[in-house]
Amino acid sequence: MKVLVLNSGSSSIKYQLFLSEDWVALASGSVSRIGEPEGEIKEEWLDASGIRQSGRARVPIPTHQDGIDRIVKALHETRVLGDVSELAVIGHRVVHGGEHFKRPTIVDDAVVDAIRDVVPLAPLHNPAHLAGIEVARRLFPTVPSVAVFDTAYHQTMPRTSYRYAIPEWLYREHRIRRYGFHGTSHFYVAKRAAALLGRPLESCNLITLHLGNGSSATAIRDGKSVDTSMGLTPLEGLVMGTRCGDIDPAVLFYLAKNLGMEIDAIEDLLNRQSGLLGISGVNDMREIDRLAEEGNDGAELAIGITAHRIKKYIGAYYAELGRVDAVVFTGGIGENAAEIRCRACEGLENLGIKMDDIANYAPEERGERCISTPESAVQVLVIPTNEELEIAQQSLEAAVEAGGG
Amino acid sequence: MKVLVLNSGSSSIKYQLFLSEDWVALASGSVSRIGEPEGEIKEEWLDASGIRQSGRARVPIPTHQDGIDRIVKALHETRVLGDVSELAVIGHRVVHGGEHFKRPTIVDDAVVDAIRDVVPLAPLHNPAHLAGIEVARRLFPTVPSVAVFDTAYHQTMPRTSYRYAIPEWLYREHRIRRYGFHGTSHFYVAKRAAALLGRPLESCNLITLHLGNGSSATAIRDGKSVDTSMGLTPLEGLVMGTRCGDIDPAVLFYLAKNLGMEIDAIEDLLNRQSGLLGISGVNDMREIDRLAEEGNDGAELAIGITAHRIKKYIGAYYAELGRVDAVVFTGGIGENAAEIRCRACEGLENLGIKMDDIANYAPEERGERCISTPESAVQVLVIPTNEELEIAQQSLEAAVEAGGG
Repeated sequence: MKVLVLNSGSSSIKYQLFLSEDWVALASGSVSRIGEPEGEIKEEWLDASGIRQSGRARVPIPTHQDGIDRIVKALHETRVLGDVSELAVIGHRVVHGGEHFKRPTIVDDAVVDAIRDVVPLAPLHNPAHLAGIEVARRLFPTVPSVAVFDTAYHQTMPRTSYRYAIPEWLYREHRIRRYGFHGTSHFYVAKRAAALLGRPLESCNLITLHLGNGSSATAIRDGKSVDTSMGLTPLEGLVMGTRCGDIDPAVLFYLAKNLGMEIDAIEDLLNRQSGLLGISGVNDMREIDRLAEEGNDGAELAIGITAHRIKKYIGAYYAELGRVDAVVFTGGIGENAAEIRCRACEGLENLGIKMDDIANYAPEERGERCISTPESAVQVLVIPTNEELEIAQQSLEAAVEAGGG
Repeated sequence: MKVLVLNSGSSSIKYQLFLSEDWVALASGSVSRIGEPEGEIKEEWLDASGIRQSGRARVPIPTHQDGIDRIVKALHETRVLGDVSELAVIGHRVVHGGEHFKRPTIVDDAVVDAIRDVVPLAPLHNPAHLAGIEVARRLFPTVPSVAVFDTAYHQTMPRTSYRYAIPEWLYREHRIRRYGFHGTSHFYVAKRAAALLGRPLESCNLITLHLGNGSSATAIRDGKSVDTSMGLTPLEGLVMGTRCGDIDPAVLFYLAKNLGMEIDAIEDLLNRQSGLLGISGVNDMREIDRLAEEGNDGAELAIGITAHRIKKYIGAYYAELGRVDAVVFTGGIGENAAEIRCRACEGLENLGIKMDDIANYAPEERGERCISTPESAVQVLVIPTNEELEIAQQSLEAAVEAGGG
């Protein structure tokens, strides 16, 4: 059987098609600039000989329906998908499930309503996900759709972690609390870390660091998320590509009062002009690394603040957990930025963390690996994430459990 | 010689008079409700036999000048101060010194201008301090006034600690950065901790926790502040009496957009309706303790979130420092709330922190004391703070150095 994973954004849809027998990705790609005069489709697929092929085309893609039509057409044309009956399930990434969704869920009308109910918590993402879900349900009425939520894995947090110190009615009436995101990624690398440690996930205490364009840290006790750095939205926590992460909330009052900024302008500033970009003028960590090596002061500072913040979260979560089996780096930066990993972990010998600099800086390494010394009480691991695979597997599991797979 | 310490707020002035030979507090008190129809003065003083006396009176106090007049009159009448020539120096608490003031400073016109220059950073506090300073300078032209800044001790932070991940021009042009507060208290208890540890402060790594109506944590390396939890303003960091501390900045956008709140209302909400009060409905930790023992859920949650946040900062600063000699609790809550201390430190054995529950919960204990076990690698200390004494001593030192004492 095959599993299609869809990640619908406001103007793009990413997809990946897996073969459930061995979880090979048969095809992947995206349609983008939906609704613009010229859209774009990118495709990669395995041909009959198992050779990876790729293509791209520019065509107008007026709506999400056209986008998914185009994806299905591409899957048929490249022969990775024959009849629709080959599809066991369609897995949809959904950013926000509020407190309602604690696990992957077969989509029916009530689930659509519940996802719509939390649109105020994710006003950009959830409507786009819903567009994709509704098209998929119309196009493939016989194939179950499963929603997999970025927030679900964090629903095990205790309330001391998820409640803010604000009036109680804001939680009760408006659901303002820490939700956390990247849950699919944190869960995926946690499972892989347990496998590498040779222990059941249920007995593992981990600190997982998903460092990409968006970044978050999660404290995992006995396999379950007990704290995470993103909050009501993905703005809180670590330094990100263009997001500020942790900041005195009074900075917003200062900007409003002394600079006369409107709330929308402040939101744009903190979400899209801050983070690495705000400090250094550059958004891309590889470029920042290169500039820092040339002696660029802003780039050096961006690396310094980013690593400093990660180190603080490692310490905070170590204290919360009391005992840590492994610290796990993942995401584009976590998997590739050796300098960030080095600075975030240096000087933590008293926490039982001893980095192996040669393993950490080995330039050719790409896969799952340990970058701490054999004596390190806490293993430091690099584990490439694979959210699409995790969504595919969770979706199939949910469909099988519901008797629909 | 005698040293007068003034802490001028917007509608009140607190004072304390010290004898510099042995640093006995000869008198202390406050004038409050300045500018209201009926003001109040409270006084405590040592009489000629060394017995502590007290008094209070209700009189109109139209201006800060009247307030300080009234304080001086009280000092004369109670005979703790004879002639003005007995006064070596007047020490003024000033909340915000920006980046300009790194140490206690004799006040002249340029200093007044520089304090005024950072009014945008402390719009409520600095104007009130300036009112007190200007009256003191007029009333006592022959006595040096020294400004002692809450921010000064934190001026040793490295920029990886004090810079936010926001556009660089906001720091360069508008001085938006972490400043930190309670510096006088953190420094005072750090010195006392070093004395208790029997080591020079310059070789001590400490985590100091000032927990009162406002609360902050400081990481101290080799006697110097290298990070602190309050930021541009005293709103960031730990859970406080009515302030939220750390929070997703996007909560503010949510309140503005979904609840239609104005920026001033949000500022009031996060500064004056949040923290312990917001979670539990009660501001006072003793009352919260009592309610929690009766099974009140909100009170239990308030204790839980407060302790959780403190524990995270202990861990974060432990990671930053790499090695910690002592964790120090001070301030009204830090000195008295054994339950908060217990929960913040439990489960930290892997950080070398082992609490002595009997010492921690001993109800009669009030002075400087150790509440960790003899085997604890990190000592946990309770040290009552004394900001007024520290201001008095720093002021006299500054005056003597400048040749004016």
